[in-house]
Amino acid sequence: MAAPRISKAAFERTLPALRDELLSLQTKLHTSKDCAVAVIIAGTPAAGRSETVNELLEWLDPKHIGVHALGAPSRDERRFPPLWRYWQKLPARGRVTFFFAGWYGEYLSGLIKGSNSKRGDERSVQRILQLENMLIRDRVRVVKIYLHTDEQTQRRRIAQLRASKLTRWRVTKEDRWQAKHFDRVERVVRSCLSATDHKAAPWHRVDGTDEEYRLLTVGKILRDEISAGLQPSTQKRLSWPREKSVKVTTLDVLQPQRPLDDDEYERQLETLQGRLARLVRKTGFCKHGLVLAFEGMDAAGKGGAIRRVTHALDARQYQVVPISAPTPEDLLHPYLWRFWRHIPAQGAITIFDRSWYGRVLVERVRDLTPEADWKRAYAEIVEFERQLTEQGLRVAKFWLAVSKEEQLRRFKARDDDPLKRFKVDREDWANRRHYDEYQIAASEMIRRTDADDARWTLVPADDKKHARLTVLKTVCDTLER
Amino acid sequence: MAAPRISKAAFERTLPALRDELLSLQTKLHTSKDCAVAVIIAGTPAAGRSETVNELLEWLDPKHIGVHALGAPSRDERRFPPLWRYWQKLPARGRVTFFFAGWYGEYLSGLIKGSNSKRGDERSVQRILQLENMLIRDRVRVVKIYLHTDEQTQRRRIAQLRASKLTRWRVTKEDRWQAKHFDRVERVVRSCLSATDHKAAPWHRVDGTDEEYRLLTVGKILRDEISAGLQPSTQKRLSWPREKSVKVTTLDVLQPQRPLDDDEYERQLETLQGRLARLVRKTGFCKHGLVLAFEGMDAAGKGGAIRRVTHALDARQYQVVPISAPTPEDLLHPYLWRFWRHIPAQGAITIFDRSWYGRVLVERVRDLTPEADWKRAYAEIVEFERQLTEQGLRVAKFWLAVSKEEQLRRFKARDDDPLKRFKVDREDWANRRHYDEYQIAASEMIRRTDADDARWTLVPADDKKHARLTVLKTVCDTLER
Repeated sequence: MAAPRISKAAFERTLPALRDELLSLQTKLHTSKDCAVAVIIAGTPAAGRSETVNELLEWLDPKHIGVHALGAPSRDERRFPPLWRYWQKLPARGRVTFFFAGWYGEYLSGLIKGSNSKRGDERSVQRILQLENMLIRDRVRVVKIYLHTDEQTQRRRIAQLRASKLTRWRVTKEDRWQAKHFDRVERVVRSCLSATDHKAAPWHRVDGTDEEYRLLTVGKILRDEISAGLQPSTQKRLSWPREKSVKVTTLDVLQPQRPLDDDEYERQLETLQGRLARLVRKTGFCKHGLVLAFEGMDAAGKGGAIRRVTHALDARQYQVVPISAPTPEDLLHPYLWRFWRHIPAQGAITIFDRSWYGRVLVERVRDLTPEADWKRAYAEIVEFERQLTEQGLRVAKFWLAVSKEEQLRRFKARDDDPLKRFKVDREDWANRRHYDEYQIAASEMIRRTDADDARWTLVPADDKKHARLTVLKTVCDTLER
Repeated sequence: MAAPRISKAAFERTLPALRDELLSLQTKLHTSKDCAVAVIIAGTPAAGRSETVNELLEWLDPKHIGVHALGAPSRDERRFPPLWRYWQKLPARGRVTFFFAGWYGEYLSGLIKGSNSKRGDERSVQRILQLENMLIRDRVRVVKIYLHTDEQTQRRRIAQLRASKLTRWRVTKEDRWQAKHFDRVERVVRSCLSATDHKAAPWHRVDGTDEEYRLLTVGKILRDEISAGLQPSTQKRLSWPREKSVKVTTLDVLQPQRPLDDDEYERQLETLQGRLARLVRKTGFCKHGLVLAFEGMDAAGKGGAIRRVTHALDARQYQVVPISAPTPEDLLHPYLWRFWRHIPAQGAITIFDRSWYGRVLVERVRDLTPEADWKRAYAEIVEFERQLTEQGLRVAKFWLAVSKEEQLRRFKARDDDPLKRFKVDREDWANRRHYDEYQIAASEMIRRTDADDARWTLVPADDKKHARLTVLKTVCDTLER
């Protein structure tokens, strides 16, 4: 079958209108900030990947464009979950970013080399599909383009590129290996594309043999995708798998009766802190790392519990990240973006004082996020934490349950203490009026996101001493598992 | 001389009040966002550096604190100017950050090992003093603490640490080397501290032998420094070296008379783009890199000139960074912070569409920044660019000079073109009313910041073709130098 062609004359006739359209769509995109566009450019060697991106950058305004060719992960990058480095580079709404191979990079090159396990492949596909579905729902348009040529064209082009000193560097060892195994690559790529082709983000296979055809086709794909991204209605057409129904009840946490005397508390605290200090200094810990998420009503004692944990840690090893309302920059990115930024490398510890669960707590209760969005967050969060634990990170999550009466008592005590008065503001009193709704939200959150590797611990928090010991003991147990 | 001591009893008596003070100052700091605090903790091995930071983290609210022990630069980090990685970690206003050794790290360890050149040392000191002076003026309080003990104490502590399996890891090879060469280290450190001791950021030498004395002393230093940082008046006491006076005139740019015909232009353009393409693909370029800054009145043709440059580049090699008004996050950091974030590694290219020169252009003309601040920016910018060129980066800066008449013509033409109408907004017309003041500001900027390694090129821009060719030719010449 002959490769599709467009004559130079037809190209010149069509181009000006297409460029105008693209530029005006990009302007609309940038001013409205309605969505972001992530373009994956993959393809066989010498099919014109970089030429295409270079040309598109000529047609668009490069100020609002990012280009990333991440290559194989470096040693430092390997200490993070595989998708971490793509999260760092995701476009903010209003921007277009081109990724060479993008999150298909490691998966595809392993597939071609035959070095992936079957289970690993399945998981890679699952991770990719989940990521793309989430991005689309968080208003990132995902455009996937695969450029290819026939074997003869590829061979000819590689020979041409290698003939000149100026272009020789562009043909890598991997390219030559792939060219030698043309049929195998073709077969493997077909299976990858079909496994990751879905309605919301289909693959566009574009024949790269004829330059004019390739450029116009890719240009039109980009035009249609940006244009679709700017239609608010397209977001709604997507359907999300039905959730299992959860019986919703308020959390009823039994507070312990027996108070602990100070000596007993100090003794146990010291023992646990010693145990924790030893655990994080074990040589094996450098293959792991720790993520702690603290949730609970205002004045539940999150800060105090966190201090008892950090007391056992070295300052160089951990960071405490307070989570409050998202900044304007955060709001231009997918929801989980601001948390991915703080994920520790292997060997390090991040303690979140409030966390990504705000999505299904405050954002749900105070009606800050549409129901469809916070509802899908349960599955997204489970997948997010799974990616952390797959990397060896230990994850523990705490709900510090304070009763309505004890909370009131603490608010009043803080109001009387000049040093702590700043801790209770109008927002806290407003949240308190929603106490029961928070209990319902927390109850559903715990049921839906309690995973084997990322457990919730329900901590009765009316008695601070008991609460702190429970937290410390759980952290130690999590590390010993 | 006996090491200073504080009894346990006296310590327990003093501590609660000090902790209260520190916590309340930290709260003030965090709520007012009046300044940031960068604490350098340096010292001899086993003098209690990490113990001190751990303890301070107990006293303060760890949510608003950062801790960085950066160690020797990694291979990736070496591709950036030495201070680059500290800029990435600078605290935002409202926060306290502890740096272990901080920007003294490489300098001090080279000094101790005797591996620095005399000229290198002088330059290191100069860079440090300049950085600290700038930070202080940009409302970052710089607190420098050096902990030390006598030789006997050090030897005893190192033996103790090495005796237990749990603490042995804390004694590095470098620590043991330093302990063996106690006198040499002491002598060298004295010279370093005295060279970098200045009124605005003095060194605090603290005897670390007695734990209680050490903690209270450091705690009090921190209290006094935060408290001083919260006094707005302290900023004004600093004096900045007198500048040489510059005769201020408006820029009078001679626009070329001879128009270029299209064929001639295309031919020259292609030749220059080919030359540029070859230059950035030379193997030597990976030791360099390129920073281009484009300035000029609205409609001077910056975007068009930038496109003619990027046309010769590969999309994976460059990024175009548009600079507009600083974000709220930018405003919490020292002025140059947002530009440091985009500095390319060796081998890469960053093109700034407007730049750090906004400080002495729009911020000066539109009265957005106090005179004292934009006046000191000249020297700060020269130093900033010097650090780039020292790293091997080539720097070229362009002022695209458009006449008042031509600017008006372009504004009107844009208004008539539906695709370009977005490019002229009310702000542009407002800037145009200040045309003459911009000329004065640009003239002074060029005279004060034209450095041998980071040249200004004055580009007559009424004729777009001439302007684009001049820019391309200058970029090529800069790379060939």
